[in-house]
Amino acid sequence: MNNQNQWIEKQLSHRTIREFIEESIPVEVFQLLMEVARRTASSNGLQACSIIRVTDPVIRQEIAKICNQEYVARAPELLIFLADQYRNAQIVKEKTGLEGVGGDADRFFSAYTDACLTAQNVVSAAESLGLGTVYLGSILNDSQQVCELLKLPKLTFPVLGLGIGYPNQKPQLKPRMDMKLRLYENTYQCSSNYLEEIHDYDEEMETYYDLRDKNNRVDCFSDQVVTRLNSIVQKRLEMGNVINNQGFKLYHS
Amino acid sequence: MNNQNQWIEKQLSHRTIREFIEESIPVEVFQLLMEVARRTASSNGLQACSIIRVTDPVIRQEIAKICNQEYVARAPELLIFLADQYRNAQIVKEKTGLEGVGGDADRFFSAYTDACLTAQNVVSAAESLGLGTVYLGSILNDSQQVCELLKLPKLTFPVLGLGIGYPNQKPQLKPRMDMKLRLYENTYQCSSNYLEEIHDYDEEMETYYDLRDKNNRVDCFSDQVVTRLNSIVQKRLEMGNVINNQGFKLYHS
Repeated sequence: MNNQNQWIEKQLSHRTIREFIEESIPVEVFQLLMEVARRTASSNGLQACSIIRVTDPVIRQEIAKICNQEYVARAPELLIFLADQYRNAQIVKEKTGLEGVGGDADRFFSAYTDACLTAQNVVSAAESLGLGTVYLGSILNDSQQVCELLKLPKLTFPVLGLGIGYPNQKPQLKPRMDMKLRLYENTYQCSSNYLEEIHDYDEEMETYYDLRDKNNRVDCFSDQVVTRLNSIVQKRLEMGNVINNQGFKLYHS
Repeated sequence: MNNQNQWIEKQLSHRTIREFIEESIPVEVFQLLMEVARRTASSNGLQACSIIRVTDPVIRQEIAKICNQEYVARAPELLIFLADQYRNAQIVKEKTGLEGVGGDADRFFSAYTDACLTAQNVVSAAESLGLGTVYLGSILNDSQQVCELLKLPKLTFPVLGLGIGYPNQKPQLKPRMDMKLRLYENTYQCSSNYLEEIHDYDEEMETYYDLRDKNNRVDCFSDQVVTRLNSIVQKRLEMGNVINNQGFKLYHS
């Protein structure tokens, strides 16, 4: 394709990298990634995303336990992206004496969005430099404990973790469903038979797992969906309550 | 900087583009952007983001009204990124007969995150091709009406709008606060004097607005924060309630 560039090639070959070589990321590369974070689009220009760089081995171990993945502690860089209206609320307090702003649903979701956009922008920059990344949604297995570990004040919340380093594995590209199942024109179109529509994708996923690990599961996509939507991590269900404890009111009355 | 590449240069010079030339995006470029969407990282591989491409002029006008920005209707491409667990819940229902899964806070936030990561990946790809973009968080000014306009089923929610096209403006790069205010090591560090810490940034923002528009506001960052955290768009405060109406339960009891 004419319009495709080297950059987009990298985006199209995105894989999660969980194992890294034992080489730290050069200081200037890390600073560059943080410059990319800084320049990421932000709702209302409020820059309501902060980042915790976790270097302390004790905290890393605790986070790896929460994530239930020991490789988390070994990632050369471990970043936690926060939704953060604390700083903005403090600016309001210092400037006007007014307390209690910044905790509404609007401000929470703006900050949550800022955190996600920033994380993805950093991922893209990292991959363009030959680095590999792993998103750690699993920090939400116990978001309350993450808040305590990182000493997060009210009006902040840990949205996503991210491991970064130079790859020590070359995983196969994971099949994805066709965009015709995910892209609609003007209005949402419900299907009357999703199993039929994802039939080919189901087969493709089975082949993928079959080739990837001969001793392992033979799992089609629809089976995964059933398993995953029915699997309950109790504290993940309660993340809204933790968000509430952190000072954000998600419902308005 | 040695490690900086052409791609990262684009990320570092990110600007919001609101005015586009009257030229549509070639079909193959649009398809490429959707391939990038398809390959974006997804929580648990559930691909819980869908996209509505809005081409109908009537719906575009309605969305522009909700956003309170007439330029929205003119963007060559107008995309709405959805958090979408409807498809997955239907797969579970078809496969097992089980209803009522997919509406917990965990699944909502996973889908919301998927939508944000996808949007930012598309933005990065678009910018690498010389396109300009504008995020439309303003669709949340009335998320209930957006749900109705786009006929969104339960277990879906409109997270972000995005306008894309070839730029017809060259806005100045907007100053951002130093990352030392947004990056912490191991634990969050609260400041006892944010106004002092952002003093230079406040001045920089004043100069920026002063140069940008001589007839307009002279606004420092801290004044903006005060204005924006105190400005209330009633229906934005209620977005959690709309999320609830869409079948997602944000708090767990």
